[in-house]
Amino acid sequence: MKALVFDDALRFDPRRPEPAAADGDTLIRVHQAGVCSTDLEITRGYMSYRGILGHEFVGTVVDSPDAALVGQRVCGEINCPCGRCDLCRSGLSNHCRERTVLGILNHDGAFADHVRLPATNLHVLPAGVDDDRAVFVEPLAAAFQITRQLRLDSKTWVTVLGDGRLGLLVAQVLRNAGCPVRMIGKHAEKMALCEKWQIRSRGLNDIAPRHDQDVVVDCTGSAAGFELAMRLVRPRGTIVLKSTVAQGIPLNLAPLVIDEVTVLGSRCGPFGEAIRALADDAVDVLSLVHKRMKLEQGVEAMELAGRPGVMKVILTM
Amino acid sequence: MKALVFDDALRFDPRRPEPAAADGDTLIRVHQAGVCSTDLEITRGYMSYRGILGHEFVGTVVDSPDAALVGQRVCGEINCPCGRCDLCRSGLSNHCRERTVLGILNHDGAFADHVRLPATNLHVLPAGVDDDRAVFVEPLAAAFQITRQLRLDSKTWVTVLGDGRLGLLVAQVLRNAGCPVRMIGKHAEKMALCEKWQIRSRGLNDIAPRHDQDVVVDCTGSAAGFELAMRLVRPRGTIVLKSTVAQGIPLNLAPLVIDEVTVLGSRCGPFGEAIRALADDAVDVLSLVHKRMKLEQGVEAMELAGRPGVMKVILTM
Repeated sequence: MKALVFDDALRFDPRRPEPAAADGDTLIRVHQAGVCSTDLEITRGYMSYRGILGHEFVGTVVDSPDAALVGQRVCGEINCPCGRCDLCRSGLSNHCRERTVLGILNHDGAFADHVRLPATNLHVLPAGVDDDRAVFVEPLAAAFQITRQLRLDSKTWVTVLGDGRLGLLVAQVLRNAGCPVRMIGKHAEKMALCEKWQIRSRGLNDIAPRHDQDVVVDCTGSAAGFELAMRLVRPRGTIVLKSTVAQGIPLNLAPLVIDEVTVLGSRCGPFGEAIRALADDAVDVLSLVHKRMKLEQGVEAMELAGRPGVMKVILTM
Repeated sequence: MKALVFDDALRFDPRRPEPAAADGDTLIRVHQAGVCSTDLEITRGYMSYRGILGHEFVGTVVDSPDAALVGQRVCGEINCPCGRCDLCRSGLSNHCRERTVLGILNHDGAFADHVRLPATNLHVLPAGVDDDRAVFVEPLAAAFQITRQLRLDSKTWVTVLGDGRLGLLVAQVLRNAGCPVRMIGKHAEKMALCEKWQIRSRGLNDIAPRHDQDVVVDCTGSAAGFELAMRLVRPRGTIVLKSTVAQGIPLNLAPLVIDEVTVLGSRCGPFGEAIRALADDAVDVLSLVHKRMKLEQGVEAMELAGRPGVMKVILTM
């Protein structure tokens, strides 16, 4: 089959073997998949991953031990837990010690004609969530995770740092949660989107950090973002850390102690809520689509997705 | 008066002017004061502080607008809030935007014959808390702060990283809170103390981090400590950051996101609980006294306190 592989270098492989059947796994024919910053970080060394990239996908079930799934249009959760370790047994299977993670850790990803996942990872998509929306379920679920970790209401002043793909989803989800949200970014066209969504936005160079935000969500994927977050958040406030970067950078954490700040790492989230929000048109994802490209152009597509200001690049199979 | 001053360099000043009276401030004759790692960090540039050092003290009230205080033996909280800013009005006066901090921020400290503090900062000491114990009230209160920030019980597995002055207080407080506590340190004599206190301890080189601790309290004051904490804490666990360092070091925060770890900055704590614990002999602080030295030997005393393995150095006036 065709696949986009990272294996020391990024390359399109026109004759990759189909994923081998694993006990209980379901085979899905991929329709399309989104390029995520994590994919870009992997090509810079993150997670030392080697294999087929891609974890934001929509497809049709071709074969499954769960007969009811066959022929259904699905998206899939990316963590494949063992079900037996202490974390799985304590309800933290997303953090399973033996897990594989689609396109990120010991599990071939979805930038390919076919992908395998356990049937329990799959979510059948309602007709209202078309393929273009469906590739956003995974990152949108990650945005919803914040609402599970933090008590948020109309008195919670939130700043979202970073107007990238994830930041623009997070801003919408927290606005819907009733918070006064401000987005801080760099790109005029993203600011225009915020205006369309009635979310306040400011340019990175137009702000004077005043240690007065209840919650700062760092979606910048840069060390500078975390430092700015420490200057924006109020004493006893919360910084939510959403994006991962491969490189360590010099950081002085003393402000966290002095201001008794809480930092909350936040990763994957609830697919059900994300699908519902898309079905209800409560979150605009279509405005985030920058370009659709064929899988054969995958190397080019990844290069494009890495350029400043470029939003979601979708690979079609 | 005599004072130990940091003013580009650390020096003993035999003729420092007495602290000027400020509205509502109480004048205290200092008996003795403890050297803290924060004092050492200040001499390395932390907080850009210039003035008399010292914030862990015990003394006798000489003069006060509160007549009942005169002649009383007291210790004192170090944050002097404005009482008017948004944070003071919301009950976060320890984080007051206009605060001064004894010996740390725009407020001459207690390594001197006399010190001034607002009467409301002072706590009268019961007879059971003698002067040697009393200099530990401030750091012990900082250790108690953790019990206010986190729910802790007999099922909370805690590792305290760093067998320095603060770490040894934190380990005792969390042991008293009912947690299974393990101390990780470097020095045989500190391990022996832990054994005496029936707190488990391990050498830094004898551990295999397994991402299995519910709570890791970083009292190392080093960047390496925070990195080790990220490898010790379980997914969805908590790292409590107690110590501040002046220097930033390269840090990769991706593990916080991947494991959805909570980092909790923790600073000053409840003096009342610390005084009660000392009065009840619930925490052993006398074993932490390394040496008592005259204020005149302050420069030497600070140098001594900075050597690896040295515990509390007390300055007597």
